[in-house]
Amino acid sequence: MIYFDNSATTKPKKEVVDTFTKVATEYYGNPSSIHSIGLQAEKLLMQSRKQIATLLGVKDHEIIFTSGGTEGNNMVLKGVASQFQGRGKHIITSAIEHPSVSNACEQLKRDGFEITYLPVDKNGRIHVEDVKKAIRPDTILVSVMHINNEVGTIQPIEEIGKLLANYPRILFHVDHVQGAGKIPLAFHDIPIDFATLSSHKFHGLKGTGAIYIRDGVKLDPLLAGGNQERNIRSGTENVAGIVAMAKALRISMEKLDEKVANMQKIIAYLRNELALIDDVEIHTPIEYTAPHILNFSVLGYKAEVLVHAIANHEVYVSTTSACSSKRNEPCKTLLAMGVDEEHASSSIRISLSFDNTMQEAKEAVEAIKTSIEKLKLAMRR
Amino acid sequence: MIYFDNSATTKPKKEVVDTFTKVATEYYGNPSSIHSIGLQAEKLLMQSRKQIATLLGVKDHEIIFTSGGTEGNNMVLKGVASQFQGRGKHIITSAIEHPSVSNACEQLKRDGFEITYLPVDKNGRIHVEDVKKAIRPDTILVSVMHINNEVGTIQPIEEIGKLLANYPRILFHVDHVQGAGKIPLAFHDIPIDFATLSSHKFHGLKGTGAIYIRDGVKLDPLLAGGNQERNIRSGTENVAGIVAMAKALRISMEKLDEKVANMQKIIAYLRNELALIDDVEIHTPIEYTAPHILNFSVLGYKAEVLVHAIANHEVYVSTTSACSSKRNEPCKTLLAMGVDEEHASSSIRISLSFDNTMQEAKEAVEAIKTSIEKLKLAMRR
Ligand SMILES: Cc1ncc(COP(=O)(O)O)c(C=O)c1O
Ligand SMILES: Cc1ncc(COP(=O)(O)O)c(C=O)c1O
Repeated sequence: MIYFDNSATTKPKKEVVDTFTKVATEYYGNPSSIHSIGLQAEKLLMQSRKQIATLLGVKDHEIIFTSGGTEGNNMVLKGVASQFQGRGKHIITSAIEHPSVSNACEQLKRDGFEITYLPVDKNGRIHVEDVKKAIRPDTILVSVMHINNEVGTIQPIEEIGKLLANYPRILFHVDHVQGAGKIPLAFHDIPIDFATLSSHKFHGLKGTGAIYIRDGVKLDPLLAGGNQERNIRSGTENVAGIVAMAKALRISMEKLDEKVANMQKIIAYLRNELALIDDVEIHTPIEYTAPHILNFSVLGYKAEVLVHAIANHEVYVSTTSACSSKRNEPCKTLLAMGVDEEHASSSIRISLSFDNTMQEAKEAVEAIKTSIEKLKLAMRR
Repeated sequence: MIYFDNSATTKPKKEVVDTFTKVATEYYGNPSSIHSIGLQAEKLLMQSRKQIATLLGVKDHEIIFTSGGTEGNNMVLKGVASQFQGRGKHIITSAIEHPSVSNACEQLKRDGFEITYLPVDKNGRIHVEDVKKAIRPDTILVSVMHINNEVGTIQPIEEIGKLLANYPRILFHVDHVQGAGKIPLAFHDIPIDFATLSSHKFHGLKGTGAIYIRDGVKLDPLLAGGNQERNIRSGTENVAGIVAMAKALRISMEKLDEKVANMQKIIAYLRNELALIDDVEIHTPIEYTAPHILNFSVLGYKAEVLVHAIANHEVYVSTTSACSSKRNEPCKTLLAMGVDEEHASSSIRISLSFDNTMQEAKEAVEAIKTSIEKLKLAMRR
């Protein structure tokens, strides 16, 4: 079995699951309780916060725990909108954001917010000049993803951060979900005000995530209640999931350069081999690209049909992103890149984890080749 | 060790943790992925939804999974406000709701909503006539908790439901967090439009919950994104946590009558024994009371000091609710009941689970007696 759909979700590490089990069983207290059962849980929470903050190079209290990437993105977008609507009601984002950003923006439109969706070039990249041009006196937020989940393009986060440093009243949010644990960002130096992480994308558990929120920046809470997490995110904390996330992030970032270099070799191999196949077109650009994602089309075949054909060989890849795959929509990022609808509807995404091997890549290439040949034969008959 | 703080959180059952571990390890796919790894996860999700719906006596698609009670309450309050603000901007709730309801209401006030906080009587109970009197032409929602988490009073949910059946344009939300798995509610018959559940209150895992949303009722999503959960709650589903929640609810509801009867015996014993102690006043009423909560004051002693003194005997109880315990606030429900500030500041909550025994209750009474005596002596010196 070859699992090449790691941008949809990853298999949690055994050590991570073991940590969850241990904490859920032995430290089940509510961190808000004042007795020792609660204090033990609170201590684990503090340690995890410190560990994650250290790994990300930020201060402990700049980390707020959430239920995942979708919550993180919604809480930043809606929280900033609510907190700073007095300043203005204009938000800049891109045409290729994850739906948890773009659909939150669409909701905000109904409350009178105006959204500028920045275009991308043929490589799926935003241009910093376009950000600059879009800025208005009433702009309160720029929200740009770090690594696009459908194609893998890395966005010019540093450049945008540098530009926005000249606009102290505009906040900067980065959806770091596909980058966390793989391509670190220097949140403070760039500088970034908010970043979203999701644990299940780096071999942690589903239902846990975090946001980085820069020291001193305010955010109207999406989840109001018992005032947990410095009042920014209420709700009894998923302590076991949080401790497990800290462990997953630590493991992911161990020997990171080495692991990324190896991953790049595997992706390069896949790129070269797949490009040799008739009717295959690679969409993921060569420059400014994440090490784990490769998007390509096989012209003439619906992506869904191909994914199933390849899955018959126990090789699991995906059509665009997991959440839009069921609706059979063409890949939104490819359309924004100017790729025609036919290609965008036949696009396949391979997404690796650090655990995938060159041997698996070789087998996957064979499986993809065989699948295409079989489909070709079937169509000729 | 005697854990008597089960309204704050419960120890997850071993079987529940085992289920989580198995699902997280073996069925780690994203339910939105179209290959078999995703489909297996989706199947578990469907089965859990069916199981929970059956246990609650509702339709499968009336169950939406969340990250817990706080999210559930916020999504209903804010979602209804956003969805139905065209109808009106008046919400009726009570003075004794959990902060995840009352603080969400306070946020809505800033958006022009008007909130009526219903009073309670000296037993902590809302009167249905007060609900009726509060109704206005622009009322869109009534939100009343089932079982109060600080004192244990059961609210007249059936009567309110019957009243509201005459007002088809007013939706009815019940915070069922303290009731779920203990005191079932007939959602359809009452009728209720929304109910909130949280898994960690019935020996499930933190970070998972559900809302019941009546067939056909619309709700503007709090978490927008990839359109999971019928578009009402986006975000990659915490499949393992959800399967574990279904199991926890099933276990909790097995032989329910028997378990509740036993719990009532233990609570009655505690009530009688504690009432005999000098300076102790029991606040939890005898009628309309949950089987698991007993709230009492020991006049002259700060609740926090007492909780710590009792904890020295390895008996863990709490000051009011977990989330307000750290802020040393007097118990909000007691104040609403007309209890004076001194009593409200010295109130202790015992909250049982079905796993607590009469023997533990006996030991706890001894521990509480000894603690009070010691404190008395210490104060005299
Ligand atoms: C770029 C990006 N942002 C946000 C999300 C949402 O994260 P989650 O699934 O944890 O809600 C995802 C993945 O689904 C993603 O790829
Ligand atoms: C009545 C009530 N509602 C809501 C909540 C919030 O639930 P959660 O801790 O899962 O966010 C709680 C407990 O904290 C509660 O007792």
